[in-house]
Amino acid sequence: MLLYKDKTKSAEKRAEHLLGLMTLEEKVGQLVQPFGWQTYEYKDGAVTLTESFKEQVKNGGVGSLYGVLRADPWTGVTLENGLSAKEGAEAVNQIQRYAVEHSRLGIPILIGEECSHGHMAIDGTVFPVPLLLGSTWNVELYRDMCRAVAAETRAQGGAVTYSPVLDVVRDPRWGRTEECFSEDPYLIGEFAAAAVQGLQGERLDSDGSVAATLKHFAGYGSSEGGRNAGPVHMGWRELLEVDLYPFKKAVEAGAASIMPAYNEIDGVPCTVNTELLEEVLRKQWGFDGLVITDCGAIDMLAAGHDVAEDGLDASVQAIEAGIDMEMSGEMFGRYLLEALHQGRLNVEVLDRAVLRVLTLKFKLGLFDNPYVDPERAERVIGSEEHVGLARKLAEEGIVLLKNENGALPLDDRSGKIAVIGPNADAGYNQLGDYTSPQPPEKVATVLKGIRARLAKESERVLYAPGCRIKGDDREGFEYALACAKQADTVVMVVGGSSARDFGEGTIDLRTGASKVSDNSWNDMDCGEGIDRMTLGLAGVQLELMQEIHKLGKRFIVVYINGRPIAEPWIDEHADAILEAWYPGQEGGHAVAGILFGDVNPSGRLTVSVPKHVGQLPVYYNGKRSRGKRYLEEDSKARYPFGYGLSYTTFGYDRLKITKDSIGAGESAIVSVDVTNTGSMAGAEVVQLYISDVVSKASRPLMELKGFAKVELAPGETKTVSFEIGKEQLQYIGRDLEPVVEPGLFQVHIGRNVNDTLSTSLTVREDG
Amino acid sequence: MLLYKDKTKSAEKRAEHLLGLMTLEEKVGQLVQPFGWQTYEYKDGAVTLTESFKEQVKNGGVGSLYGVLRADPWTGVTLENGLSAKEGAEAVNQIQRYAVEHSRLGIPILIGEECSHGHMAIDGTVFPVPLLLGSTWNVELYRDMCRAVAAETRAQGGAVTYSPVLDVVRDPRWGRTEECFSEDPYLIGEFAAAAVQGLQGERLDSDGSVAATLKHFAGYGSSEGGRNAGPVHMGWRELLEVDLYPFKKAVEAGAASIMPAYNEIDGVPCTVNTELLEEVLRKQWGFDGLVITDCGAIDMLAAGHDVAEDGLDASVQAIEAGIDMEMSGEMFGRYLLEALHQGRLNVEVLDRAVLRVLTLKFKLGLFDNPYVDPERAERVIGSEEHVGLARKLAEEGIVLLKNENGALPLDDRSGKIAVIGPNADAGYNQLGDYTSPQPPEKVATVLKGIRARLAKESERVLYAPGCRIKGDDREGFEYALACAKQADTVVMVVGGSSARDFGEGTIDLRTGASKVSDNSWNDMDCGEGIDRMTLGLAGVQLELMQEIHKLGKRFIVVYINGRPIAEPWIDEHADAILEAWYPGQEGGHAVAGILFGDVNPSGRLTVSVPKHVGQLPVYYNGKRSRGKRYLEEDSKARYPFGYGLSYTTFGYDRLKITKDSIGAGESAIVSVDVTNTGSMAGAEVVQLYISDVVSKASRPLMELKGFAKVELAPGETKTVSFEIGKEQLQYIGRDLEPVVEPGLFQVHIGRNVNDTLSTSLTVREDG
Repeated sequence: MLLYKDKTKSAEKRAEHLLGLMTLEEKVGQLVQPFGWQTYEYKDGAVTLTESFKEQVKNGGVGSLYGVLRADPWTGVTLENGLSAKEGAEAVNQIQRYAVEHSRLGIPILIGEECSHGHMAIDGTVFPVPLLLGSTWNVELYRDMCRAVAAETRAQGGAVTYSPVLDVVRDPRWGRTEECFSEDPYLIGEFAAAAVQGLQGERLDSDGSVAATLKHFAGYGSSEGGRNAGPVHMGWRELLEVDLYPFKKAVEAGAASIMPAYNEIDGVPCTVNTELLEEVLRKQWGFDGLVITDCGAIDMLAAGHDVAEDGLDASVQAIEAGIDMEMSGEMFGRYLLEALHQGRLNVEVLDRAVLRVLTLKFKLGLFDNPYVDPERAERVIGSEEHVGLARKLAEEGIVLLKNENGALPLDDRSGKIAVIGPNADAGYNQLGDYTSPQPPEKVATVLKGIRARLAKESERVLYAPGCRIKGDDREGFEYALACAKQADTVVMVVGGSSARDFGEGTIDLRTGASKVSDNSWNDMDCGEGIDRMTLGLAGVQLELMQEIHKLGKRFIVVYINGRPIAEPWIDEHADAILEAWYPGQEGGHAVAGILFGDVNPSGRLTVSVPKHVGQLPVYYNGKRSRGKRYLEEDSKARYPFGYGLSYTTFGYDRLKITKDSIGAGESAIVSVDVTNTGSMAGAEVVQLYISDVVSKASRPLMELKGFAKVELAPGETKTVSFEIGKEQLQYIGRDLEPVVEPGLFQVHIGRNVNDTLSTSLTVREDG
Repeated sequence: MLLYKDKTKSAEKRAEHLLGLMTLEEKVGQLVQPFGWQTYEYKDGAVTLTESFKEQVKNGGVGSLYGVLRADPWTGVTLENGLSAKEGAEAVNQIQRYAVEHSRLGIPILIGEECSHGHMAIDGTVFPVPLLLGSTWNVELYRDMCRAVAAETRAQGGAVTYSPVLDVVRDPRWGRTEECFSEDPYLIGEFAAAAVQGLQGERLDSDGSVAATLKHFAGYGSSEGGRNAGPVHMGWRELLEVDLYPFKKAVEAGAASIMPAYNEIDGVPCTVNTELLEEVLRKQWGFDGLVITDCGAIDMLAAGHDVAEDGLDASVQAIEAGIDMEMSGEMFGRYLLEALHQGRLNVEVLDRAVLRVLTLKFKLGLFDNPYVDPERAERVIGSEEHVGLARKLAEEGIVLLKNENGALPLDDRSGKIAVIGPNADAGYNQLGDYTSPQPPEKVATVLKGIRARLAKESERVLYAPGCRIKGDDREGFEYALACAKQADTVVMVVGGSSARDFGEGTIDLRTGASKVSDNSWNDMDCGEGIDRMTLGLAGVQLELMQEIHKLGKRFIVVYINGRPIAEPWIDEHADAILEAWYPGQEGGHAVAGILFGDVNPSGRLTVSVPKHVGQLPVYYNGKRSRGKRYLEEDSKARYPFGYGLSYTTFGYDRLKITKDSIGAGESAIVSVDVTNTGSMAGAEVVQLYISDVVSKASRPLMELKGFAKVELAPGETKTVSFEIGKEQLQYIGRDLEPVVEPGLFQVHIGRNVNDTLSTSLTVREDG
C-alpha cells in the first residue's frame, strides 16, 4: 500500500508522500476551487456531470469545489431546478466518485459551502443571521447551532464552510453588518471560538464536522464610508487590539482555514499582506491551516487595488504572500503553471500551498471516507430539532428596544390586531443574505406567527402590506389604513431586505393579496454590496407608519432588517419596538411568542444604534478623547451597546471583588447579585466591562471582558462572578505587544454599557 | 561683554553660553508661555503691568507669552477695551522692557500670536480664511499675504505665529475645515512652503518677519467622525504620504516652530509621540526648531487621553518626547521643577528644550532689538495695501459653482435686487474663526458691497435678513418675502458663522433694521469645537429660500460659510451659486465684483463637496477600491475637487509630453495649450494629476502634482507646462520609504479632477 493511502499514518506524512508523487499540473489543480454548481446538470430527475468538469478532473485540476449545492440567483439554482437534501447528497457523491476514480492519484475533492447561518442549499435549516445570533449572548446555543449546521453540511459532502464571519462592525452603513456578530471584539471572540468548536467538533473527520474558515482577515468591518471592501484606514495597534482579536481566539480554538479580506489596510491588500499572513497568522499565532482567497480577490489585485501588473503577477504575489487556494481558481488555474515555466514562481512556494491543501483533506478524512449517506442527509437536514433550535435562537436574540404604556405583551384584551408592513408576510425578507430560496410554507412570517398563536381566534388578525421596502408606491396606504381602522392594536412590521431576486412575484398592495410563490419582492436595501447612505427606513415605510399612527391605535413596531435603524420619529412615537434583525425561518413564531409574552425577550444589542448617520462612528468602545457632540446632537448612540428590555426587571446588588490589588500574574474574582425583581421569569445578560484608568497607549473608556446569560424566576437571586486576570486586563501596548500595565482599573458590571455598578482593582508594580 | 550678548556670535553659540548661566528656575521659565492678555490692564488710556506678571519675570519665569493682543470673548478684549495698533505696540514694548530690565539675565520674551488669516488683534487686516486662500490656487498672492501678516504682527512685537494650519481635511463635519487649505496634501504643501517663506522672510530678525509654527502635527484633519481632536485611525503609510507631506514641505522651507496636534494616532497622543517628534521630525527631516504644545495639550494627557497619571507625569512624558515649550505653561510651570527635584526628569532633557527656545530668540533678534516702533505699527497695520490684498484674495478664491439661465453676471437689466439672508449684512459672520472683533465700518458685507457697486442707483437694492443662521424663528419671512416680491433678482446670502459671541446685538428680523453695533448674532454653526452632524444649512434658511424661490425671481445664492454645504434642493433650483467661504473684511466687495462681472471668478474648490453627510468620506484622492455607490446615491462628490466656473470658457488642446519613457532619475515635460474661448478675460487653474497605473502599495486613482493659474485675454492661448520627475512620481512604498517604482503612469491635465486630457509616461527599470 502506498504510504499516502495508509490510514495509520499522520495527515502530514501522508500529504508529504502524496505531494512527492504529483506532477506540476496536479499540484496546481489542488489550489483551484471552481464553482461547484457548474460541475453538473440536473434534468428529469438525473444529475449529469459536465464534460468540462470531467476533463478538468482527468487533467488533475479540481482540488476543491465552491458551492456544489449553493442555491441563489447567482448560481441559477432555484426551488424548481434545485436538488433536495437527499438528491444533493447523491449528486455530491457522484462528483466525488468521479474525482476519486478518474484522477491519476485518486485525490478526493474538498467541497466548500456557505453556511454562515445554515447550509446555503435547498432544504437546509435557515437560522437567524449572525447579528441576531450575537444578540442572544448565548454562546452555548450558538455552538449547538454550529453543530447542527455542520451536520447538515457534511451530510451533503460539504467539508469546509466559509464561516464564521468575524469582522468587527464599525460602520452600519455597510450592507454586511447583518453577517457579523457585533462591534465588540471580545464578544465576537467568544462566538468565534464557539463557531470553531461547533463546526469542527472533536475531530474533523467525523460525519458531523466541517472545517471552519475564518473571514474576512482583516479589517473588513472598518471599510471607508461603510462601502463594501473599501480601503481600511487603521494602524497596527488598533488592528491587533480590535480586528485581529477574534481571529486569534478562533485560531487558538483550532480553526482549520482562513480567508483574507478583499480590502486593503493602509495601502496593502490583505490578499498579499505578508505581515498579516506570515508574520502574525503563521509565525506569531502558529496557524498551520489553509489560507483561501475570497472570490475574485486575486483578479482584484490587478484590477481594483492595482498592485499587480496582470493576473500572472497577481497570482505569483498572492501565493508568495501565503495564499494556498484560490476560490474560483481562475487566476491560479490560468497562470501558476506559466509562472513556474517562466521561472517567476519557485516550486517550493507551490509545494507549501499544495501540502496545506492535502493535509486538510487527510485531516477531514476525505481520502478514507469520501462519500456520504444520502439517507442520513434526508434525516439530518431540516430536522425538527434544527428547526426548533432556529426558533430558540430567534427567541433569544430579538431585542425589545422600547415598551411603554403597557404595550407589550399583548393579551386577550389587545383586541383586533392589524399586522401591517412590507415585512409582515414577506418570508424571504427575514432570512437575510447568504440564504437559499425556501418554500413559503417553510418560513414563518410574523403574520403567520401571529395567526398560529391566535389559531382559534383568527378573526382577530388583519393584514395589509401597505408598501414595499423601497420605492414610492403609496397605492397600498388606503387598504392598510382601512385595516388599521378596524383594529385595536397595530403591529407594524417594517425594516429591510437582503433577499436577492428570486422571482418575479408581487404582492397586491391594494388588497394584500399575495401573488407570489416565494414571497420575494426583490426589494434589497441590505446585504453584500448594498450599502446605505442613510440609516432611515427605505422607501415610504415611515410615511405609512405616520399615517397609521394618526389613527391612535396601540402602535407596536417590529423591525426585520440587517443593520441598525435610525428613525427618531419611531423611537418617539411607537409604544413598543422589537428589533428582530433577520430572524430566520422560524422568526415569525419567535416574534409572536415575544409579542404575546410566551417568551420573555432576552436579546441585547451587540451594536450601538445611532440617532443619525452623521453621528458615525458610534460604536461604544471608542476612546475618551472622542468628541462628545455635534451642533445638532450629541455623539451618543440612541440605544447603547448591551441594551435590551425584558418583561420583568432585574436588580443588581452587592458588587464585590475578592482583592483590592493583584500582581500582574494573579487574578481576582468580581461578583454581583442579580435578582429578578419582577413577576415573570426571564433571562438577564450580565455584562462585565473594564476601564484601564491610565495606560501608556490610550484605551477605550469601556471594554467588554465577560458576560453571562442568567435565567431567573420571579424573586430569584443569583450571584454572578467573573475572573479578572491577565486576559481581561491586558491590551496591545505602545510596542505592539500584549501587556498588563500596573495601575488602577475600574471594574463595571451591569445591564448595558451605560448602566453598571463599579468597583476598582489595582495591579501592583511588584506583580 | 558676555558672549551671549555678542551679536557677532551665532545664535547657537549665544544660546549655549546663556544656558550655562541659568538657574533651574530660569530654565523652566523659558519653557512656559502664559497668556499675554493677562499681563496688563488697560484703563483710562494707560497700560499697567500686573503684579503677578512682574513677580513671574523677577522669578525668571516668562519665556514666552501667548496672545498679548489677542482680542475675542475668550481673552475678554473687545473693541471697547482693546488697544489700537499703536497702543498695542507700545504695550508690547512696555512688557518687553520690563522683562529685559527686570530679569536677572535680561532675556526678552518670545511673543506668540494667532495670525492664520491676519493678526488676531484689533485693527489687524482680516484676510479670508485658509479654505478660501487655498481656493485661489495662487500661491504667490498667498505669500504676499503672509508678508503682510508678518509685517502687521511683528510691528506689534509678535515674533512667532501659530500658523500655518497644514491639516489635511478629510471630513467636512469638522468645524475647523475653514482653517485648512484643502483635502489635498500637495496643494497644502505648496501653500505651506509659501507660508514659511512669507512669514519668515529672508531673515527671522527682520522687522517684517515672524517665526511660523506648523500645526497641527499630525492627522488632526482625520479625526473620528469629524469630531474635533478625536482619535485618528491611520496607518504609517497614509500618515507619511498624506498628513505629513505638507509638514515636510514646510520644514524643508525652513519653518522655525511646530505644534503637535491634540489628537492621538492609533492610541498615541501626538504630544508624546516620539516616533513623530523625534524619529520623523528631527532625525529624518532634520528639523532644529521649536516644538510647542497646543493649549492644554499636556493636561489632556492625564485627563482625556489618560496616558499619564497626573500633571507631573504628563509634563515629564511630554518634555521627554520632544516638547520644548508649553502653551499656557500651566503644567510645565507647576511640575517641571518638582520633577527635577524628585529625580524623575533629567536636566539634560530640560536643557535641550531651553536651548531651542533661546536659539529661536537669538535668531529672531530679540536680544539685540527687543522693541518695536509704535509709529510704524500704526502705518503698517490695516494699511490700504493690505486691505487691497485682502480683497484681491477674496476675488480670486470665491468659487462659482453654478451659473445657468444667464443668471450671472448681473447687469443694468437685472432690475431691482433683493439681498436676503442672515449673512447678507452680518459682518462678523464673514470673518471666520480666529478673528478679532472689527468695527462694522471696516467690514464690507455683501449688502454693503452691492450698495457700493450700485452707489448711484441705491434704490435698486432692497435688504432683508429673513432669518438667523440657527434656530426656527420665522418671523422675518414675511418681510423678506415682501422685499423679494418687489425685486427682479434675489441674491440669497446664506451659510454659516464662526463668529464667537462678541455682544448682545440683534437684527430685527421683521424689518431688517440692525440693532447691533458689531453685526454679531452669536449664531455659530462652525469654528473650533463646533462640528456638524449634517452638512445642510442650519436653522430655517433652506425653508426661507424655498418660500422666496416660489416667487419665480432670478435666484442667486451666495454661501458664506466654513465647510462644504450639501443641499441638493439649492443645487437644483438656484440659477447661480457662489461659494464665498468666509471671505474676510473685504468679502462683500469681492462678491459684488463677481456678481456684476467686474471680476471674473477664478476660484476652484480645494475640497470635494458631497451630496449628503452619509456619503463621507468623499475626498477625491481615495483609492480605486473605494466603493462606487450607496443604495440611495453614488459615492461621488456633488462638486469635484478643482471645480469652479468662469464667465468665460477655456479650451484644452495639444497635450504633449517630451518623452514616452524616462529613467528613475530623469524627468519629462508635459504641456498643454489653454485657450480663452469666450469673450471675457479670465484666469484658469490648470491642474496636473498623476495616476500610477500599478504600484506595490495602492495609490489614489488621481493625485494632484502641479497647478498653474493662468490669466488669458479673450482668444488668447498659452502653453502651460509641468515637469514630471521624481517629486511628482514618488510615493511612500511598502517599506515606508519614498520610491519611484518603474512602470506606467498616466498624466492628466485639466480643469478639475473629473475633466482632464490624458497621456502616459513610463518609468524604465533601467532608470
